[in-house]
Amino acid sequence: MIRFYAPDIESDPVLPEAESAHCVRVLRMREGDTLEIVDGKGGLYSCVLKSARPKAAEVEITSKSTLDRHWKPEIIIAVAPTKNTDRMEWLAEKATEIGVDKLVFLNCERSVRKTTKPDRIEKILVSAMKQSLKALKPELEVDVPILEFIDDCSKLDAIKYVGYCDASVERRDFSACYSGQENVVILIGPEGDFSPSEIKAAISAGFIPVTFGDTRLRTETAALFALCATHTLIDRFESGR
Amino acid sequence: MIRFYAPDIESDPVLPEAESAHCVRVLRMREGDTLEIVDGKGGLYSCVLKSARPKAAEVEITSKSTLDRHWKPEIIIAVAPTKNTDRMEWLAEKATEIGVDKLVFLNCERSVRKTTKPDRIEKILVSAMKQSLKALKPELEVDVPILEFIDDCSKLDAIKYVGYCDASVERRDFSACYSGQENVVILIGPEGDFSPSEIKAAISAGFIPVTFGDTRLRTETAALFALCATHTLIDRFESGR
Repeated sequence: MIRFYAPDIESDPVLPEAESAHCVRVLRMREGDTLEIVDGKGGLYSCVLKSARPKAAEVEITSKSTLDRHWKPEIIIAVAPTKNTDRMEWLAEKATEIGVDKLVFLNCERSVRKTTKPDRIEKILVSAMKQSLKALKPELEVDVPILEFIDDCSKLDAIKYVGYCDASVERRDFSACYSGQENVVILIGPEGDFSPSEIKAAISAGFIPVTFGDTRLRTETAALFALCATHTLIDRFESGR
Repeated sequence: MIRFYAPDIESDPVLPEAESAHCVRVLRMREGDTLEIVDGKGGLYSCVLKSARPKAAEVEITSKSTLDRHWKPEIIIAVAPTKNTDRMEWLAEKATEIGVDKLVFLNCERSVRKTTKPDRIEKILVSAMKQSLKALKPELEVDVPILEFIDDCSKLDAIKYVGYCDASVERRDFSACYSGQENVVILIGPEGDFSPSEIKAAISAGFIPVTFGDTRLRTETAALFALCATHTLIDRFESGR
């Protein structure tokens, strides 16, 4: 069954404009047809189309269920956007499929790109959530100054890692130090790496410098590798190994 | 230093046409300039440009070193290509950065795309190898019938896994069953999954059915996740955890 996204479905049983158009104009659904709606917060609703208005299709909720995340610890990936926006859009898609709670685009001293347009990324998150049969949309934050982000993390009950390229800082292997149990924050720097003052601030705030294998990865590849490694270690812990 | 690719550099110290053009026309390198060449087989050569011919630049090798892979077990990923070739090109780039020994594009019963043009993929492998500072180019095989591939794998000293979506077959969690020590072959099916006879043939040939977490992944995402999980488990084993 086709799934639609309506973040406020519980309080307002109407599909947003783009979803309404897709439902009524593209798929030509009619009153009485059944459909599934996710709210991006874990809720999955079985619905019946009540009014096939192409800009504001109204539905009646017949049942609600909750689709839990398939992972337990909360995962936050914070990354300095690449110059090429395609690479960040690709990361947003893949991270949503694989599973992430929050995606943060940082402003770093050496960031080539300082701003990210959230609208396009939001669309990708929604589309990847639907495609991978999830009901939870990752939170998105853009243009967050790195020092502010590091500071905000002090309030989190999470183990914090920073991927760092420069071997002059002592680094551990991520696969050997994350147990798979704790909530986790992973910082991935820009193409030119973090500046010395940024890495110093991260380490002072309790971030553990790590590598993801002895290879040079592009920013978006490092972020995705970090996420896959996190899930692998969570799965391994949960299987009792 | 800019790296060039010349697979036969040891026997014939001349850059291939495209690399010669890049060296002489684009970068305007001149006789006497120094450059680095990789042969895609692990060899890294320091060279001096002897003759700046734009179609066949000739070099003199001044020293040779070997860049070992950063992983020990051999990793083979075999995947049914997606309809959209961009997604396979993306996989080729990312897999090379992260590290893979061989990439095989399969022909399956339910493959949407039956043929892959190797030239474009080869270019991506070379470019990603250079970009990620490797000297080893993954081997590439295209249009391999899946039953032939399964049969060929019987000669390999490797543990074999098949990612399978259909829950009617008993599957293990990949993160819990790969130790990180053995050579490994991972089969990833097409968008419509393997056919029952294909999965039966794989299982009879000793492939272990696995999942990569409880989520629906696109073909290229599953292949990349499998590769990242493999490296994570290898790294973890090597660190003694």
